[in-house]
Amino acid sequence: MTQTCRIVFPLYPGVTQLDFTAPHQVFNRMPGAETVVASVGGADIEGDGLVFTRLAELEAVEGCDVLCVPGGFGTTAAMLDEAYMASVRRLGAEARYVTSVCTGSLILAAAGLLKGRRAACHWAWRDLLTLFDVEVDEGRVCRDGHVITGGGVTAGLDFAFVASSEIFGEDAARRVLLGLEYAPAPPFEGGRPELAPPHILEQVQRAMGAAIDDRRAGALEAARRLRAHTS
Amino acid sequence: MTQTCRIVFPLYPGVTQLDFTAPHQVFNRMPGAETVVASVGGADIEGDGLVFTRLAELEAVEGCDVLCVPGGFGTTAAMLDEAYMASVRRLGAEARYVTSVCTGSLILAAAGLLKGRRAACHWAWRDLLTLFDVEVDEGRVCRDGHVITGGGVTAGLDFAFVASSEIFGEDAARRVLLGLEYAPAPPFEGGRPELAPPHILEQVQRAMGAAIDDRRAGALEAARRLRAHTS
Repeated sequence: MTQTCRIVFPLYPGVTQLDFTAPHQVFNRMPGAETVVASVGGADIEGDGLVFTRLAELEAVEGCDVLCVPGGFGTTAAMLDEAYMASVRRLGAEARYVTSVCTGSLILAAAGLLKGRRAACHWAWRDLLTLFDVEVDEGRVCRDGHVITGGGVTAGLDFAFVASSEIFGEDAARRVLLGLEYAPAPPFEGGRPELAPPHILEQVQRAMGAAIDDRRAGALEAARRLRAHTS
Repeated sequence: MTQTCRIVFPLYPGVTQLDFTAPHQVFNRMPGAETVVASVGGADIEGDGLVFTRLAELEAVEGCDVLCVPGGFGTTAAMLDEAYMASVRRLGAEARYVTSVCTGSLILAAAGLLKGRRAACHWAWRDLLTLFDVEVDEGRVCRDGHVITGGGVTAGLDFAFVASSEIFGEDAARRVLLGLEYAPAPPFEGGRPELAPPHILEQVQRAMGAAIDDRRAGALEAARRLRAHTS
């Protein structure tokens, strides 16, 4: 692979930083990869207490080979931000691969880029995909044609290695896997609702209560706008 | 847990960003955690193409409960940066927990904080720990008293959940594990040298050649300074 492969991460306020820092770490070490981290107007972006600067201006990014949209609690506002969504729609329409991590798939869906596709998402929010005529996949990484989506947050690592193997070849992916020492060993199971102790699941769901209502309302409005946009 | 637990990440140029972004994502969601990302003079820090801004001034951080030092190709220069090392030494001497990810353990070792301890490190560099009278642990996460160290890069996630379980309690750690959907599923094995296909290991080792010589020279100089400092 001698050509450059441009991978664009369109950030927005309230992004979950690990959703893109993990795949960025993987892609950044692939031979020929050019990673571009962008935001509307090139503004600094805060996500979970980290502030990212010297970002590219999203509107000025001419095109990309891979569009990779991260998720986060800012997803709802991002889906309703016309400037952000116009860039996602424009870049996604021409990208060789349209990808996401976590609730980033809701943004792709709201941009109309997943219509009739299967996609993964964070377990707590994935049912919202159906509002956009997207089939929910409960897997950690889901491939449907040129669309590759990951589940919640940490699934971004598995997603990045699956996507890298496809884009840069298995040997390149394996070299970076070894270099980043990706042989995970969580101290306990429970990273999926069906594996978590019931009292933990209940506590997490209770803590998410308000965010769930809020995000559903946002997704309904985004779905309404998408219908208006495409009809 | 009602008290605040302050966790400080002392960054330096050339840090491997996932070494601290992964544990930061985990710690940041723990109840009562206060995460502080700092650098010498509060300067912006670039790591693998991402630039972090609005950092705390490391010299002005008064103290912390947890010191967490990330690794990276900038480790060698950091070990020889007196201003950086003075802060690491000062914060580490008073911290309840002294921790690291990847080659961050070499920095802790060079600061004299691991003398006579066992510690983990990235597989390619862990033998350098012996220069500082530190016993090498080949595990993904190593606990020795108040010292908790992780292996290479992605081990930072496992490290963070082990440390969080100890510091914030198992239920809190389990809630965040579920929230971040940490049920890893790499597309292939090979994240440790003994699990990687031989030709992949050989390619990675060949690519590391110059860096290995460079880092050994830096570690030898850091070990010399440590002896001068403590004798």
